[in-house]
Amino acid sequence: MSHFIGIEAGGTKFVVAHGPDGLHLSDRHVIATTTPDETMAQVLDYISQIQREHTVSAIGAGVFGPLDPDPSSPHYGHITTTPKKAWQQFNFVGFLQEATGLPIGFDTDVNAAALGEHRWGAAQGLSDFVYITVGTGIGGGAMVNGKLLHGAMHTEMGHMLMPQDLAKDPFEGVCPFHHNCLEGLASGPAMMKRWHVESALDLPADHVAWALESDYLAAAAANYTFCLSPKRIIFGGGVMNHPGLIEKICPKTLQAIAGYVKNATVTEGINDYIVLPGLGDNAGIAGAIALAEGSLG
Amino acid sequence: MSHFIGIEAGGTKFVVAHGPDGLHLSDRHVIATTTPDETMAQVLDYISQIQREHTVSAIGAGVFGPLDPDPSSPHYGHITTTPKKAWQQFNFVGFLQEATGLPIGFDTDVNAAALGEHRWGAAQGLSDFVYITVGTGIGGGAMVNGKLLHGAMHTEMGHMLMPQDLAKDPFEGVCPFHHNCLEGLASGPAMMKRWHVESALDLPADHVAWALESDYLAAAAANYTFCLSPKRIIFGGGVMNHPGLIEKICPKTLQAIAGYVKNATVTEGINDYIVLPGLGDNAGIAGAIALAEGSLG
Repeated sequence: MSHFIGIEAGGTKFVVAHGPDGLHLSDRHVIATTTPDETMAQVLDYISQIQREHTVSAIGAGVFGPLDPDPSSPHYGHITTTPKKAWQQFNFVGFLQEATGLPIGFDTDVNAAALGEHRWGAAQGLSDFVYITVGTGIGGGAMVNGKLLHGAMHTEMGHMLMPQDLAKDPFEGVCPFHHNCLEGLASGPAMMKRWHVESALDLPADHVAWALESDYLAAAAANYTFCLSPKRIIFGGGVMNHPGLIEKICPKTLQAIAGYVKNATVTEGINDYIVLPGLGDNAGIAGAIALAEGSLG
Repeated sequence: MSHFIGIEAGGTKFVVAHGPDGLHLSDRHVIATTTPDETMAQVLDYISQIQREHTVSAIGAGVFGPLDPDPSSPHYGHITTTPKKAWQQFNFVGFLQEATGLPIGFDTDVNAAALGEHRWGAAQGLSDFVYITVGTGIGGGAMVNGKLLHGAMHTEMGHMLMPQDLAKDPFEGVCPFHHNCLEGLASGPAMMKRWHVESALDLPADHVAWALESDYLAAAAANYTFCLSPKRIIFGGGVMNHPGLIEKICPKTLQAIAGYVKNATVTEGINDYIVLPGLGDNAGIAGAIALAEGSLG
């Protein structure tokens, strides 16, 4: 059976895996994100190794941005203006295509995860949904009318400017661009800096941190609901591994919407509207496999 | 030449007009929004009158919500849970279909306006854009991948929860649902109540009201950019008739985005990214004509 190779290309590490589909994945192999020369050489080594064992029919990559996901653009497949200098203008798709001759699927890491959840996870059969990752950064992917949302380039949902009650939370945020965006106030690094811990997950369940975190994520879920009218919102990423966090977000999202949105999807099934990824931590890499699959047309 | 009839059904008044397309409209005729019995009787009178002069091939209606725009739903074409009791569960499409036997196009007032701008106005040729109306309320319609965004029901973009600097603006908002949503802070009634005037447009150009208004609309434009990555944002509605307001919003949107979105559509052409409707105050009624056109399939 032919295999696909998935690449989840993050700013600190790449995860690669292979399989016949997103539900039957090999062990993950991790490669540090250093320079394109070093990192991509290891990616090619991995591909060659898998090709010795399996017929590989396509490669899919969910990649940190900003990037150009528009196949009609001259810069399609490039990482564009990232602060990681070595990766600026790196032609991710061109490099892999030239080195392997295989079809390459390519999109943002969060759109890949959304696609993975659509194909095999918590968004199966849903034409309209949002996938949010809450981890080192916060980002979102969305499907609208059954197609991934790209628009002019791609969304930056984590940088949504948020209401912040300075009396309750005087924290200045960790985003160098916006003092009050969701990523700045609610990402893993925001929790680490605000509460002086080395990992958000070190904060005990009864710490006020989780009440505040769920306030922000619920307000964000309300705003995604107002702006995109999704049929489901999936919250993934490392911070969501805190037990009980999703259960806190659900009722607070209803409070933030405050009765304004009347569709039954939201009002009658909040625990089915705001959910964890069906694929757990595999959403991103399975999504890369889905991108590979999609590249075969 | 056959004509279409457009109905812009608002909460205080209906505007009806007819024409062969959205660029060649008859004079508008205004009907007060009272009860379905009264208001729709006058709509039918208007339709009969036009049918004596023209062959009418279809009717389009852009309607105040919440409503059900999903053709596959049993409640398609109904106004649903509006606070206007007389209109709750009114079958708008069914009523017109039964009375006229004509094809009926139907969507939200803001999606209609978005469609009108796409067909004949400032969004021609754009697959992805947002139309925001700033008037008695604030609402938004969006197109993604060339199709109107509906999602689970329809968006409520005006109810996005906003950052509010209480030191600068301690106003409690006018939205009965959310003390800090965009509509509550920046609609016409919000300006009237905050500044004690009978119309926002009575406020002189050098009044601080316009600086604050453009702050909120720019923050909203930044958030729509982050969430939807549109190729253009059109601001229409009565409040936007204030001269100079759009020019204030443009640079402030760039400030709110703070360099984070790198696509040239935003960074190199902000005055072409944030614009007034190409159809001016006719966006809504022309959009209703576009819905009529679309109902012919």
